[in-house]
Amino acid sequence: MRLLGNGQLSPDFDAECRGTREILNRVGDKWSVLLVVILGSGSQRFNELRRALDGISQRVLTSTLRGLERDGLVSRTVRPTNPPQVEYALTQLGTSLLEPVSVLATWAQGHRADVQRARAAYDRAAR
Amino acid sequence: MRLLGNGQLSPDFDAECRGTREILNRVGDKWSVLLVVILGSGSQRFNELRRALDGISQRVLTSTLRGLERDGLVSRTVRPTNPPQVEYALTQLGTSLLEPVSVLATWAQGHRADVQRARAAYDRAAR
Repeated sequence: MRLLGNGQLSPDFDAECRGTREILNRVGDKWSVLLVVILGSGSQRFNELRRALDGISQRVLTSTLRGLERDGLVSRTVRPTNPPQVEYALTQLGTSLLEPVSVLATWAQGHRADVQRARAAYDRAAR
Repeated sequence: MRLLGNGQLSPDFDAECRGTREILNRVGDKWSVLLVVILGSGSQRFNELRRALDGISQRVLTSTLRGLERDGLVSRTVRPTNPPQVEYALTQLGTSLLEPVSVLATWAQGHRADVQRARAAYDRAAR
């Protein structure tokens, strides 16, 4: 997905796209993005994450964490306490994703009102 | 989704989250991200976009473009030629999204191999 200096797409755009798209699937998932941001401030236990992500179901949180773990972005540590505690943290790779994800989240936050205005105008015009 | 200086989430994290999440839904969608990148190099017609996004169906491209238009990120112009040509371009708001999206796409591209390695290791361990 490289743009050449002249603003044209690179010749191997298609091949690059496919792999990048696959990763954006994960990176672009809203819960994944929020989990990366939250874990960016330190490791957390499952129930802490669930409370922080108000509205996420246990099932979706489990599968999102598993996906992040599979992608090498999040580590899962079981502490031999009684009962055992499971802790999630960003890996080094996950930490490297914090910066781009924060840039995106900051944009989303800063332009929320613009997007909402645009949506309202579009829906009025569509009536 | 603001982090405070001490690395804690801001008290209004939940409320901010909800609105930001809604926008990340769109921004995080892989086709939307790719369309923003492609339109970043200039306006394009529907069929040009369809060719550039190898693998997208006509239906999905139509609905993704409509979503981007509704969010105020993309404009749709019908040129009174025969047959009429429909051209899509980034709006000013859409152009402002180019930067964060490029940062994310660059990360995805640069860490594709890391993620693929992590996935392979995870799947081996799960067997």
